[in-house]
Amino acid sequence: MTIEPGPLLANINSPDDLKKLSQDQLVQVCQELRQFIIDNVSIYGGHFGASLGVVELTVALHYIFNTPSDQLVWDVGHQAYGHKILTGRRDVFHTNRKYKGLSGFPKRKESEYDTFGVGHSSTSISAALGMAVASQYKGETEKQHIAVIGDGSMTAGMAFEALNHAGVTNSNLLVILNDNCMSIDPNVGALKEYLTDITTSRTYNKVRDEIWNILGKISKFGPNAQQIASKVESGIKATLLKQSNLFESLKFRYFGPVDGHDINHLVSVLNDLKNIPGPKLLHCVTVKGKGYALAEKDQTKWHSPGLFDKITGEIYKTVPEKPEPPKYQDVFGHTMVELAEQNDKIMGITPAMPSGCSLNIMMKAMPDRAFDVGIAEQHAVTFSAGLATQGLVPFCNIYSSFMQRAYDQVMHDVCLQNLNVVFCLDRAGLAGADGPTHHGAFDIAYMRCLPNMIVSAPMNESELRNLMFTASQPDMGPFTIRYPRGEGVMPEWRTPLKRITVGTGRVIQEGEEVAILTIGHIGNYAVDVCTKLQKEGIRPGHYDMRFAKPIDEKMLHEIFREYDKIITVEDGCLQGGFGSAVLEFMADHNYHAQVKRLGIPDKYIEHGSQLQLHKECGFAPEDIERTVREMILQPVTVR
Amino acid sequence: MTIEPGPLLANINSPDDLKKLSQDQLVQVCQELRQFIIDNVSIYGGHFGASLGVVELTVALHYIFNTPSDQLVWDVGHQAYGHKILTGRRDVFHTNRKYKGLSGFPKRKESEYDTFGVGHSSTSISAALGMAVASQYKGETEKQHIAVIGDGSMTAGMAFEALNHAGVTNSNLLVILNDNCMSIDPNVGALKEYLTDITTSRTYNKVRDEIWNILGKISKFGPNAQQIASKVESGIKATLLKQSNLFESLKFRYFGPVDGHDINHLVSVLNDLKNIPGPKLLHCVTVKGKGYALAEKDQTKWHSPGLFDKITGEIYKTVPEKPEPPKYQDVFGHTMVELAEQNDKIMGITPAMPSGCSLNIMMKAMPDRAFDVGIAEQHAVTFSAGLATQGLVPFCNIYSSFMQRAYDQVMHDVCLQNLNVVFCLDRAGLAGADGPTHHGAFDIAYMRCLPNMIVSAPMNESELRNLMFTASQPDMGPFTIRYPRGEGVMPEWRTPLKRITVGTGRVIQEGEEVAILTIGHIGNYAVDVCTKLQKEGIRPGHYDMRFAKPIDEKMLHEIFREYDKIITVEDGCLQGGFGSAVLEFMADHNYHAQVKRLGIPDKYIEHGSQLQLHKECGFAPEDIERTVREMILQPVTVR
Repeated sequence: MTIEPGPLLANINSPDDLKKLSQDQLVQVCQELRQFIIDNVSIYGGHFGASLGVVELTVALHYIFNTPSDQLVWDVGHQAYGHKILTGRRDVFHTNRKYKGLSGFPKRKESEYDTFGVGHSSTSISAALGMAVASQYKGETEKQHIAVIGDGSMTAGMAFEALNHAGVTNSNLLVILNDNCMSIDPNVGALKEYLTDITTSRTYNKVRDEIWNILGKISKFGPNAQQIASKVESGIKATLLKQSNLFESLKFRYFGPVDGHDINHLVSVLNDLKNIPGPKLLHCVTVKGKGYALAEKDQTKWHSPGLFDKITGEIYKTVPEKPEPPKYQDVFGHTMVELAEQNDKIMGITPAMPSGCSLNIMMKAMPDRAFDVGIAEQHAVTFSAGLATQGLVPFCNIYSSFMQRAYDQVMHDVCLQNLNVVFCLDRAGLAGADGPTHHGAFDIAYMRCLPNMIVSAPMNESELRNLMFTASQPDMGPFTIRYPRGEGVMPEWRTPLKRITVGTGRVIQEGEEVAILTIGHIGNYAVDVCTKLQKEGIRPGHYDMRFAKPIDEKMLHEIFREYDKIITVEDGCLQGGFGSAVLEFMADHNYHAQVKRLGIPDKYIEHGSQLQLHKECGFAPEDIERTVREMILQPVTVR
Repeated sequence: MTIEPGPLLANINSPDDLKKLSQDQLVQVCQELRQFIIDNVSIYGGHFGASLGVVELTVALHYIFNTPSDQLVWDVGHQAYGHKILTGRRDVFHTNRKYKGLSGFPKRKESEYDTFGVGHSSTSISAALGMAVASQYKGETEKQHIAVIGDGSMTAGMAFEALNHAGVTNSNLLVILNDNCMSIDPNVGALKEYLTDITTSRTYNKVRDEIWNILGKISKFGPNAQQIASKVESGIKATLLKQSNLFESLKFRYFGPVDGHDINHLVSVLNDLKNIPGPKLLHCVTVKGKGYALAEKDQTKWHSPGLFDKITGEIYKTVPEKPEPPKYQDVFGHTMVELAEQNDKIMGITPAMPSGCSLNIMMKAMPDRAFDVGIAEQHAVTFSAGLATQGLVPFCNIYSSFMQRAYDQVMHDVCLQNLNVVFCLDRAGLAGADGPTHHGAFDIAYMRCLPNMIVSAPMNESELRNLMFTASQPDMGPFTIRYPRGEGVMPEWRTPLKRITVGTGRVIQEGEEVAILTIGHIGNYAVDVCTKLQKEGIRPGHYDMRFAKPIDEKMLHEIFREYDKIITVEDGCLQGGFGSAVLEFMADHNYHAQVKRLGIPDKYIEHGSQLQLHKECGFAPEDIERTVREMILQPVTVR
């Protein structure tokens, strides 16, 4: 079922069509666009609040600027649904985030209007500046370059680095600060408070109060005093607001704040800004979820609500027939509280993902021991390292793909000092509908090469709990626990906490001929495969290695003595990953088995359901089964 | 030879001894400390300008604060020589940066006064905040936490992330901004200009001018107008300066700027700040190289000058008997200009290392095509990606260990979009005297797992030039070229530029029994070994694989068909590195050779000369030789 667009939107197949409309039709375009997003997301799913918040801004940008020649970069890209719909993707928009369908984020391969692929936060200013400097170098002086960035994304250091560079260039760069006080969760930090301050003119008011204060004491200067001072005050107001502005400090011209839902004002302001050269920032105040009352009210819940009834606002939930296994995320969240109640050294840290990773459970229960530090992975890691130097045990929860943002801090501040920081890497492995920006494909490879680092992955909820408990023991050093997005396998998951010996795997089943070595949740596929094959009398061994590092050498010696055919399975990249660790062991100990590695191949995997993607990568259950059968048939060849 | 300290310094074995002195003796302590640093560095080498610039600050900090209970974190740490000398390491200071001697950076293992290990920039605020929050949690309310950070380090986004978090805490945190307008090279960017602005009160002056301007127009208000306005002006001055301050915007209390060389004023200011709760920033203006005229004058040259005559200022250079091979750095720098002259698409980017990586040669020759973007690796990479979207070919030069700072940007902004950005990783492999923070140990492993990325390393200068030329060809995609710190092997290095087929190695010598597979400069060790062994009739094969990815599969097939004993050698980590790529090939193609991998083992390697460290890691020439002999003696065993 395709959603019917409104009459104006139905005829907008590109920004050129939008430009043919008169300005007074834009209010209706915005209404129709907003409705189209609501209609689509309620039925087909996707991110919601962010795009509703920038409907007017999106329409105004494409109305005023000459896209795609003028270059528009959306930060993160959750808010770019309107942009996609206006730039020729309206009729395929229902495939958004579906396997082989539109990406949930702007993507260069998808459209020339998507000037820069996004997904992770705070890249837009750097990218747009690169484009602007390129235009300058080529002499394309008329070209406009626009980065649209949220106040949450602005807290990441990378955005500051870009401002610091851009401020001293003459590049034709417009940064639009989309200030809605939100990341996925409410935005945090000093910058947020500052933006609220300037939006409400508190800085100016403070100075004004000061002036009037002084004037109280100078009434001896005669009856004109108040009048004079008033004149002085209004005269310096403009200058003062400029001078006291953080962005002006960084040599940007600051404009705003403006109401981001007043389409006519936006059109007029953007039109003016086109003619102002150099780096400039437009502060645009918007409401996330604008136009859908429930979404305006609970912005975190409606960031990406799932399917819902657009009339009643009821978010659909499938009612399970029997108790369902919980999400790994929730096991993490509840276990954090449980551990912290027993151990007063434990602290929790998240960079802006409290609801996504479920640290919000601990933040609510123990607000002085759990911190949302903003979109700031680098700081999150080194802040954790600082806590660890004082004998505390920080659990720093970062999505696997976002951990790439703090790789140096893990190496330089944690591993090198052998500090007891626990990294819980959520969304490890193929993340699903969010696609290649969000897949946690590389963590085993990039963590495993760091000295002192322990790299582990639980096969189920109980194992996650036990690994967390183990990681919180004294003097463990750096400890990585990676687990996927979504459900585990244990409806009764609140098992007693047990300490695991670091570097030991588990025998799931002793077997014959072929050994399957798995790490993490994906091991459950192997269990299913073994169950199925058993009916035919085929009985491969299955070992849940649990640690990619230190790898269980005792167990590997036994395996390599017993088997000459080995399959490794991981929900991670094959280059340098878990399977390679097994190969390194084999070479170092001079074993010579046939080893077939299953995992994520050396290419970027697009979006889709996790199972679809596992199939595409060749490590779904049927792939494991086929590989076992093939290996059994193969003679052992030594070439 | 140990340097004689002055009479006061001779008795300072810890900050407690310093505290016993009267305040009016501190000027002399500073003189003696400065002289001791000059004496030592001139004879034993090391970093110079940074520590001279903070002599007074160092003395004042240890005089006023109760270190190590009060926690002092130095950012980067080049400036911490005085700190080391005052905290019990005076008599071993001559071992600084020597093998088994003191580290050139603060290091937790070395002293309890070194509260946090440093080396990479901009970690200090995050770490000190972690400590402060830990103190708060523990109820240690009297504890002070101080981060000393340069204005260069302040440009890195991580510092901003930490300020953004700290500003909304009540933590007892003092950030000292050591403003000397320098990184190693002059600091760049909008923040630097802003700091100059506030140091010279330009912001305030601008507003004042505005007021007087207005007053010109309101003289009709009578003779008192000027006097009233003057009163208003002075009254709001304080408020205005506060309100207009970037750091106050981020909810820090701002103090300063103060003269960082006025020891008495520093002592008094720090004493006051001890009693002010919450996050605060002291802006301290210093001169890098202070007290040594030549170093004050050419601060980049004297950042780390090598040995010199302290009287004449002559920097010693060993005069080579014959033409010497150039440094890889200089080959890079000159080749950039050569390539860019032929190809107008080529651009150069460095994050604050123009003199270190020699991009300064291009910056001088082609200022509109080569950019120092500040200490901002993340921005440097995504800015490069932005340039690449416009058809330009950016060469982004980042030290291997600093590239860890921009890992996500490489993955998310460059590789995922398959953009033609060339990453020149300087200081790849063991970097020498800078030690573990600066060793480029992990790059092959962390780059090789990223789809689309080409990973290469030249064995000599000519190869570096050819790889750079190759990388600049159309549609190459992401291209990494890693090379070590220091000299190559070719005195006549200006060879004609030749295109290399990506993914092909070079046969250095066909041989028998054992094949040595090397990557990068370290291959020259194997050449020496082969030359030596040849005299005994031992003739291993030697293959310069040149690419870790894509690895030369054709050559590997030939090698694995011909040899069953293989040695891989790399100046990089063994976990997931080049040798593992060879193992992966072997497993994927079902070969079964004995493979011995030589490289950096799974531990942090301390500082020393590169050869000392290669020996420690077991891949110096004698290690390669021994391994060849051992393998020849071994029977092929299949276990």
